Amino acid sequence: MSNYTPLSEVGEFGLIKRIKDKVELRNESTIKGIGDDAAIIEPGEKQIVVTSDMLLEGVHFDLTFCPLKHLGYKAVAVNVSDIAAMNAKPTQITVNIALGAKYTVEAVEELYEGISLACENYNVDLVGGDTTSSRTGLIISITAIGEVAKGEAVLRSGAQVNDLICVTGDLGAAYLGLQILEREKQAFLADPEMQPQLEDRQYIVGRQLRPEARMDVIHDFKERGIKPTSMIDVSDGLASELFHICAQSNVGATIYKDNLPVDEQTLEAAMEFSLDPITCILNGGEDYELLFTVPLSDYDKVKNHPDLSIIGKITERSEGINLANKHGQSFPLKAQGWQHF
Amino acid sequence: MSNYTPLSEVGEFGLIKRIKDKVELRNESTIKGIGDDAAIIEPGEKQIVVTSDMLLEGVHFDLTFCPLKHLGYKAVAVNVSDIAAMNAKPTQITVNIALGAKYTVEAVEELYEGISLACENYNVDLVGGDTTSSRTGLIISITAIGEVAKGEAVLRSGAQVNDLICVTGDLGAAYLGLQILEREKQAFLADPEMQPQLEDRQYIVGRQLRPEARMDVIHDFKERGIKPTSMIDVSDGLASELFHICAQSNVGATIYKDNLPVDEQTLEAAMEFSLDPITCILNGGEDYELLFTVPLSDYDKVKNHPDLSIIGKITERSEGINLANKHGQSFPLKAQGWQHF
Repeated sequence: MSNYTPLSEVGEFGLIKRIKDKVELRNESTIKGIGDDAAIIEPGEKQIVVTSDMLLEGVHFDLTFCPLKHLGYKAVAVNVSDIAAMNAKPTQITVNIALGAKYTVEAVEELYEGISLACENYNVDLVGGDTTSSRTGLIISITAIGEVAKGEAVLRSGAQVNDLICVTGDLGAAYLGLQILEREKQAFLADPEMQPQLEDRQYIVGRQLRPEARMDVIHDFKERGIKPTSMIDVSDGLASELFHICAQSNVGATIYKDNLPVDEQTLEAAMEFSLDPITCILNGGEDYELLFTVPLSDYDKVKNHPDLSIIGKITERSEGINLANKHGQSFPLKAQGWQHF
Repeated sequence: MSNYTPLSEVGEFGLIKRIKDKVELRNESTIKGIGDDAAIIEPGEKQIVVTSDMLLEGVHFDLTFCPLKHLGYKAVAVNVSDIAAMNAKPTQITVNIALGAKYTVEAVEELYEGISLACENYNVDLVGGDTTSSRTGLIISITAIGEVAKGEAVLRSGAQVNDLICVTGDLGAAYLGLQILEREKQAFLADPEMQPQLEDRQYIVGRQLRPEARMDVIHDFKERGIKPTSMIDVSDGLASELFHICAQSNVGATIYKDNLPVDEQTLEAAMEFSLDPITCILNGGEDYELLFTVPLSDYDKVKNHPDLSIIGKITERSEGINLANKHGQSFPLKAQGWQHF
């Protein structure tokens, strides 16, 4: 225990200094980072995009099974994912954290290690924020800023009838990863001698604990000359996100059940938990993949992409939002998503 | 009770819609506000500044005596104050809130009324954020974005030897306002029939509950052709902020006790609580006034300003940071500030 430093020993300014000393700046647009009343950013001729997200212990994460480093990484990744969903490049973040008295300096540094690693991977500068005390658990609130050339931002509202609906990666894994972690937690609470059984579930557990924002796809779009007509990241679940696109674009959609991308581990876990895999894929959430639409004329650009699936097409608003099977039958889709309240 | 709407009745998206419907956009640089993965901002040729702050129930505010509308206003004002301290103009904010189950839709709307009023007064656009549930109290995390012409941003690091040290408004009022509110709360808890005695303490109580960011002074600087060499807002207390300026500018400072600006109500309340008024002025915090330095050559521009006080001068680093009385005696100043941990 004596190797750990209570926060009270270094104080707020000492803590900020430790954080600041480890921060590297990577973007030319970052003129002034941590250490003044505000950071200064100079995006040049570009538009900037800004998004903000808050994660609370006991609501969004459980430190029993979520290592602080992964949590820091995830907190950045989910914000970068929103920047990616605008077809923009993330450049800066601010990080507000509130810490309970039980936290040590080393714990905070572990959290920032994850934040730093994400900053490195996504080429983002940590430029400021606030550290304060919490009477309860850990709270992390991150704002991400990004840049996009004028005219290149992709909104949720641009989908057109006959556009192809595409999604990156696979779906449902993060949700089933969470089920695995919850089960292992209960087993551990019942018998602390028990070792968690995660070996053959590494992929889906990793999808829950340390998701990646799909910036690789955004860079790839540029290379392939793809500009989606609409885009959103899958945080609440595919169905819920599709409803956002359809509502804001004033269109309908048909999704083909057989085209939904899913990993083998996800399917196995769904069977293990007696859950309908299609429900997990449609409503699981936290996948942080990108759901987007492209004009039919872009079919050749997306059809053979190893990491994209064409899962449906945009229809007239009046046709509604439907799930079709291979027999040509079609059923109205319901958006469940994540209920905060 | 039946006039109040539980959050579960409208859900997260219903709540966001209600918030969105009340948001007006005021800045040309706001291209896209609430309703997509991120907001879009186009600052043109300017630099942008960004700052972030988090307020927690039980740590930063007490809803027993802080009306939600004032709290919303204050949460915006403290962030605008940081933008002002950069000599910049605030343009956009994002608001993240976490709400306990006891909150109703009406309570959230009251909070946003205060946020909206501040947006109106400071000409700021609310462009996004996150609403989520909290297992404990209310948490508000705000990020403010502002614009400043290249070369016009004022950092903490520019103070030069012989610069005049100035402060806006008066100091210590917010701290004594808090003492009054805490006393009335204790009296109320002891006897709920008791009516709070706040009539002759309106000013200092108001300074605590609904502080203003000094954007008026920033606009005034432009008119008078003043560009401070360094600037910071007084959130933790004058002494603590002066230490930041001296450390980052690598200089010392002498403050003249008799020049410190204080309101009569602050003095009276200090006596009532048997507190040293100078300590309250130096270390009280939450005044959100601006502490700044100007070259001696700007003396004529600041000397007759009704809302500025010249409180000291910048010295060599080796002379340290001192408080001088009218007899020419000088004592090293201590920064207490606010200890979060």
